[in-house]
Amino acid sequence: MRFSSVAILGPGLLGGSIALALRRVAPATRLALWARRPAAVAELEKTAAGLAQFASTDAAAVVRGAEVVILCVPIGAMAPLAETIAPHLSRDALVTDVGSVKGPVVRALGPIFAGRAPFVGSHPMAGSEQAGLAAARADLFQDAVCIVTPEPLTAPATVAAARAFWELLGCRVRELPPDAHDEAIGLVSHLPHLLAAALVHTAHARNPAALAFCGNGFRDTTRIAAGPPAMWAEILEQNRAALKSSVNAMIENLKDVVKLLDVGDTHAMERFLTEAKTQRDRLPAKTTALSSMHSA
Amino acid sequence: MRFSSVAILGPGLLGGSIALALRRVAPATRLALWARRPAAVAELEKTAAGLAQFASTDAAAVVRGAEVVILCVPIGAMAPLAETIAPHLSRDALVTDVGSVKGPVVRALGPIFAGRAPFVGSHPMAGSEQAGLAAARADLFQDAVCIVTPEPLTAPATVAAARAFWELLGCRVRELPPDAHDEAIGLVSHLPHLLAAALVHTAHARNPAALAFCGNGFRDTTRIAAGPPAMWAEILEQNRAALKSSVNAMIENLKDVVKLLDVGDTHAMERFLTEAKTQRDRLPAKTTALSSMHSA
Repeated sequence: MRFSSVAILGPGLLGGSIALALRRVAPATRLALWARRPAAVAELEKTAAGLAQFASTDAAAVVRGAEVVILCVPIGAMAPLAETIAPHLSRDALVTDVGSVKGPVVRALGPIFAGRAPFVGSHPMAGSEQAGLAAARADLFQDAVCIVTPEPLTAPATVAAARAFWELLGCRVRELPPDAHDEAIGLVSHLPHLLAAALVHTAHARNPAALAFCGNGFRDTTRIAAGPPAMWAEILEQNRAALKSSVNAMIENLKDVVKLLDVGDTHAMERFLTEAKTQRDRLPAKTTALSSMHSA
Repeated sequence: MRFSSVAILGPGLLGGSIALALRRVAPATRLALWARRPAAVAELEKTAAGLAQFASTDAAAVVRGAEVVILCVPIGAMAPLAETIAPHLSRDALVTDVGSVKGPVVRALGPIFAGRAPFVGSHPMAGSEQAGLAAARADLFQDAVCIVTPEPLTAPATVAAARAFWELLGCRVRELPPDAHDEAIGLVSHLPHLLAAALVHTAHARNPAALAFCGNGFRDTTRIAAGPPAMWAEILEQNRAALKSSVNAMIENLKDVVKLLDVGDTHAMERFLTEAKTQRDRLPAKTTALSSMHSA
């Protein structure tokens, strides 16, 4: 499938990387970029010369005539932006987004786009603890999993178009209903994020000097705690029902660990660690399967 | 300081790396290696030709005449091995170990070596989730922190000799009393290990299919859960008093997180994440400071 024109709303890490990737794999595609701030548009025109045919703070102008429209803004900014662009969309444009939480986003955006243009949610699981256009990379999506989240009434052609778009960027596309997505990603992305932050808090509160003795184990376990706090606070808040339940399950698991330590049962502890290692060793490999989970 | 002869007891990841490092920085040093199993000695002679002048299953023969003796065996194997070698040590030999837990090790070994040879505990914080001689590297200790753990009555000359030995291998040496070491390392190494394992358990128990959607965030947060279970079960068991208290603090911290999610206070969540990011960003850098924490 070819896409003659693509509008990217929000040129941050993900939006910028989509633009860079399209420049490489589909150089004939016309790219239009929207940024909220005039300074960001000016920066786009200066630092990313050749990145897009058109950059503007006027979202209506950016989406006009676009075959694909991708919302790459923080979750809280999506609905207002959707209201702004909806009247100006081509009726057959594919509209999608890159939000890390899908239930609330799809429930908010679906009704706005209904009758205007076909919409389906997406979550390309690519990113890093860095943010912004400066961190954008043309290969960010290569081998990354992208979860497309159709609802029961989403047209198969819409899903197919979204799949084709992400596959063009190098993604391995999977499908999950929005709420199933949020439950799964709450476990493998949002819960680890909270744990990483809570571990830093706990270690620092108990013994600030101990952090000077940390090694690569602590560094890796807490890496994602260096991600952008405002973006993550919003993601965690949007997925709080699933996340609360996961954190509570984690607390119960840690209470079991305390019991193991209490009785000093080294064999039971070894079984606990062996089961964890077995599942950990089965994770999809970094190089072939996935980039990361820190998308907006 | 020069070391004319060094005995390494246990040629695993750490013992093997000490041998490789000494071969490079002190090629004139005579190396003697002890392994428990005859097959391991045979392997040493076959695969590590030139690694040592002498390899044997006879610990007494290996330590005889050595200026430095390093116990690189699992924690539970240390006391019996210490009993075996004590009568055969030179009276001015420096004896140390590489155990990840220091209070119990120092309390067990100190009385065995008392009156025989000067002893001080060490914890070179280098390693990986891999184990065994095959994973050994000559540069494993380069820029790694090594914590030397003197007790009040440890002679300054013994501490100085241990410092000189680890600095020769490239370590950045720090000193902490044994129990202070265990408290600090419980927080920045043992607690992360338990969390990584508990996260894998929790995610797998709630939704095994979700693991297929994991990205680099989950992979990094759980990397250390792939470490050798038997070795880690012993480490965690030996440090269980400090560790229990840390896990309980972590549980309290997670309960606070659940409260933040309950009230849906995004600003408070953002502050929580910002404070974690601030401390995370202040950690010593990977490249200049440290290797890792997964030593035996």
